[in-house]
Amino acid sequence: MKLSNSFWQTYKEVPSDADIPSHQLLLRAGFLNKTTGGIYSYLPFATKVLNKIKKVIREELEKIGAQEILMSFVTPAQLWKSSGRWDQMGPLMIKLKDRKDAEFCLSATNEETITDIFSATVSSYKQLPINLFQINTKFRDELRPRFGLIRGREFIMKDAYTFHMDAKCMDETYEKYFQAYSNIMKRLGLEYIAVEADGGEMAGAGAKTHEFQIIADNGEDDIVEAKEINFAANIEAAKTLRNALDWNDDIKCEQVQTEGMTSCQEVADYLNIPAHQTLKSILYTATYRKKDGSEKKAHYMFLILGDDELNEIKLRKVLKGTHALEPASAETLDELGLPKGYMGPLNKKGFSIFIDEAVELEAGYVVGANKINYHLKGLKPARDIEEFKVADIRLAKSGDLAIDGKTPVKFRKGIEVGHIFQLGDKYTKSMKAHVLDHNGKKVSPLMGCYGLGVSRILAAAVEQHHDENGIIWPTSMAPFDIYFAYIGKKETTLKVAESIYKKLNDNGFDVLFDDRNVGAGAKFKDSDLLGLPIRLVLGERDFENSKELEIRLRKSQETIKVKEENLLLKLKELKASLSDL
Amino acid sequence: MKLSNSFWQTYKEVPSDADIPSHQLLLRAGFLNKTTGGIYSYLPFATKVLNKIKKVIREELEKIGAQEILMSFVTPAQLWKSSGRWDQMGPLMIKLKDRKDAEFCLSATNEETITDIFSATVSSYKQLPINLFQINTKFRDELRPRFGLIRGREFIMKDAYTFHMDAKCMDETYEKYFQAYSNIMKRLGLEYIAVEADGGEMAGAGAKTHEFQIIADNGEDDIVEAKEINFAANIEAAKTLRNALDWNDDIKCEQVQTEGMTSCQEVADYLNIPAHQTLKSILYTATYRKKDGSEKKAHYMFLILGDDELNEIKLRKVLKGTHALEPASAETLDELGLPKGYMGPLNKKGFSIFIDEAVELEAGYVVGANKINYHLKGLKPARDIEEFKVADIRLAKSGDLAIDGKTPVKFRKGIEVGHIFQLGDKYTKSMKAHVLDHNGKKVSPLMGCYGLGVSRILAAAVEQHHDENGIIWPTSMAPFDIYFAYIGKKETTLKVAESIYKKLNDNGFDVLFDDRNVGAGAKFKDSDLLGLPIRLVLGERDFENSKELEIRLRKSQETIKVKEENLLLKLKELKASLSDL
Repeated sequence: MKLSNSFWQTYKEVPSDADIPSHQLLLRAGFLNKTTGGIYSYLPFATKVLNKIKKVIREELEKIGAQEILMSFVTPAQLWKSSGRWDQMGPLMIKLKDRKDAEFCLSATNEETITDIFSATVSSYKQLPINLFQINTKFRDELRPRFGLIRGREFIMKDAYTFHMDAKCMDETYEKYFQAYSNIMKRLGLEYIAVEADGGEMAGAGAKTHEFQIIADNGEDDIVEAKEINFAANIEAAKTLRNALDWNDDIKCEQVQTEGMTSCQEVADYLNIPAHQTLKSILYTATYRKKDGSEKKAHYMFLILGDDELNEIKLRKVLKGTHALEPASAETLDELGLPKGYMGPLNKKGFSIFIDEAVELEAGYVVGANKINYHLKGLKPARDIEEFKVADIRLAKSGDLAIDGKTPVKFRKGIEVGHIFQLGDKYTKSMKAHVLDHNGKKVSPLMGCYGLGVSRILAAAVEQHHDENGIIWPTSMAPFDIYFAYIGKKETTLKVAESIYKKLNDNGFDVLFDDRNVGAGAKFKDSDLLGLPIRLVLGERDFENSKELEIRLRKSQETIKVKEENLLLKLKELKASLSDL
Repeated sequence: MKLSNSFWQTYKEVPSDADIPSHQLLLRAGFLNKTTGGIYSYLPFATKVLNKIKKVIREELEKIGAQEILMSFVTPAQLWKSSGRWDQMGPLMIKLKDRKDAEFCLSATNEETITDIFSATVSSYKQLPINLFQINTKFRDELRPRFGLIRGREFIMKDAYTFHMDAKCMDETYEKYFQAYSNIMKRLGLEYIAVEADGGEMAGAGAKTHEFQIIADNGEDDIVEAKEINFAANIEAAKTLRNALDWNDDIKCEQVQTEGMTSCQEVADYLNIPAHQTLKSILYTATYRKKDGSEKKAHYMFLILGDDELNEIKLRKVLKGTHALEPASAETLDELGLPKGYMGPLNKKGFSIFIDEAVELEAGYVVGANKINYHLKGLKPARDIEEFKVADIRLAKSGDLAIDGKTPVKFRKGIEVGHIFQLGDKYTKSMKAHVLDHNGKKVSPLMGCYGLGVSRILAAAVEQHHDENGIIWPTSMAPFDIYFAYIGKKETTLKVAESIYKKLNDNGFDVLFDDRNVGAGAKFKDSDLLGLPIRLVLGERDFENSKELEIRLRKSQETIKVKEENLLLKLKELKASLSDL
């Protein structure tokens, strides 16, 4: 394509709300146009990238027997009411009414629609397994859209859904998707980690689920990794162990005055003990919703080591079936006689107690005395707390060991681009999607679902692959193979450039020919910003002297001079070698 | 693809609300799943067809230099307010609010967004012309969704937009699109007519515009055609001539009693004259909206031949700038002293008069006398009506001649799948999208827009290509090349069938292998319903006797017996010959 005929414009200014490099670069390099917060239009070069990503996804999914479908974007409320999610989705899901006042929503995900389609089509176990995917628009009304495409409101997603008679089949298909996603990441040239994750509202706590994270400094997700033992998990789900700790089990149980010291660290410093010999007591209120719509509340005290933090996602997993879970209100603390900063597990009623697995139950700890300005020394959980449960409720942190007890974990930042789930019968049961098994008995098939953020991949790729001058596209998703600049003024050399452009096109290269009437400096700047893998320059003077053109690789910045007669061969070599990366 | 692993199900019943063959067949043959009225999901085979249609469209548009983009589906109200269409679009456009109460709508079309993107990207005449397209979801909240995909609410559309410095360039691009659309129709194997059309609200009356109509008995559009002189127009826009008429100019102007006769035909019969020697007088009220939002009303009497009908679209063209145009209310008729069934143009005030071009101004006509139960004979418009304008306001009808005055026109039914418009500066002006011309002066570029209903093409193809047994897909958009049925029970013949299936796949055929455990009758019925171009059958008995398989062409129903060793060659021949259609 000739640049003089292209709809393309670069920008020098960084938009004030563009918060991370991928966001800035995609706007500056003319890939995106912002419609309004969290809503973008994809300009020609971005659309080319999207189409390349979609092609790779289609190919890899077809290899594992997935069939492409296309579900409606506007879906009727009735479907979501049948699964119970019409109320659960909250303001993330845009609701609307048609001219006849019928209620609809914009698809934020499509479990309901697919289960409905499945019901209408499949009636016998013989038709299973079923493996369907779509590439479609989704809308989630994020409270704080940010990072450009990474947390936008309207986005493009590949979502797949599978149906199975039994867990073995669901497992096998899950493995196929795991492998397909890994292949997609590799083919797209992205450094990724597949991490254990939390099922959240989609699948329910405890469901088997992995996220595919693109490694990037500005990732919103914290990944806990121990490569040596093949462990990686989102911090939300990561179970790790504290590194070896000294326990003090000699402290007598007695009250100490700790005036004004409301944090574990302050108390530990004052008593000259490590913070992990104190226990943090934190009260939460859980709300349970009954079938008749009425609500019931219950309070829980969580005890963790003084230098640990709670992991709220883990709390939800421990307390199954909660509708809401929040730190207890000041009123609740008052009612239960728990003074903030000095609360503890002893001599109070009205709540259940969970102790974190990292706590040594036979060791002595300092805890709040439930009396302002006082703590209790020498509390031994096993001895002193009447009733409690033990669970993994702490947040993994730097210095932890993997669950082998030996390997130190590392922390990395990632951008979640894929998430695969085993949903089980959550949707088939609630929406009464049955098939007949080989005994003619109605059963609810087991489902898997598999999301992949197509537009997010585009941005994540830039976030992972850029430098101070611009984007460095992985070969497989670059909008063109070659940026070809002509720098000259004479009719004769322009003709040579035109013929080279034609020859490269005829030989299967997708070339962006910069024939604009602007200076070499501007062309090189635009070229770096745009980030195609190969830059080819025909400089009039050099060419007239030596018949040479210059090739420069965007990533390695390697420069190669090449005679016109050897150009095609050299470029073919380079293209093959770059694709092998 | 093996059918035993496919998500596919056919149905015997015709859904009660499926009103035309394409709608019935696409549901019965398992292409579509109805979500709710006017909203469908595309099942795997339909998605394959859609992807083939999209590919042809992309290729033809890229040939004329169009670049693909992807605009947001949810668009902010502000854009539509700036063009003035936020209020104009009416209930066809779904409006919604986000969590922060900001107003949005679902894209029904995208002139506003593209003009906004254009403004942000282009500043100089040097960058023109610009040629952009997208393939995206659209939503129009039709009052009465019907005919399945043909008048659905959510649909897939290719919409393109071009920007130009002058009319010559706009004309040239328009011609390119005209040709590209023609190529697309031909490549998709569709019989179509490009017809002159009405610009409607999109482009304004009088703009150059053509519709691409797929010929089909159940089409909603009436096409007026005179092939011999290369004329075709939508009836909404068609200008035709009445066939030679006798005029009676001898009637004296006098009042006649016509008790109870309120139609021209009744009066003509009673007076024993042809109906075209009477004039129909029809009063309309137009509303004009001023810039300050206030409204002004004006009344118009339209006179047409007694056996003609008014064409409301033409009225809008004649009365430029009306906000609304409706038959006058009973109150208005009362106020103006115009008795219904007996009204006429004489001796009344408060309205302007338009006379249709088919009326012979020097001839004598019967018209209403503005007195109940009375008409007036011998009215000569040129002599008796003080002030009037002449315009083309009648509806073309059977028996008319083309404007050459010689060629009789024919009427056909069509499904509009494409519509191309010259928009001029309608949007660039209202949205203040300027570029600098070569003198450095701000100008509003001229726009073209070009719609193509992708999902509608899918249904229109079926409407044009089917028989009583099912769909007959044009080769270019068939979901597979070959339906291959294995009819047998022995391991040995199944193995042969499997190897043939593999061989065909390896040779570039997209084969649907019916390996289901159902009878030959069911397989043949499903095959006819599904409508792939070629049916191949390996019948165990025949094959064991003669090593022959049977090929049957869906369209011609021709049957060919072929030895296994000649099969590949024969199928290659057939595929090539079918593609040439």
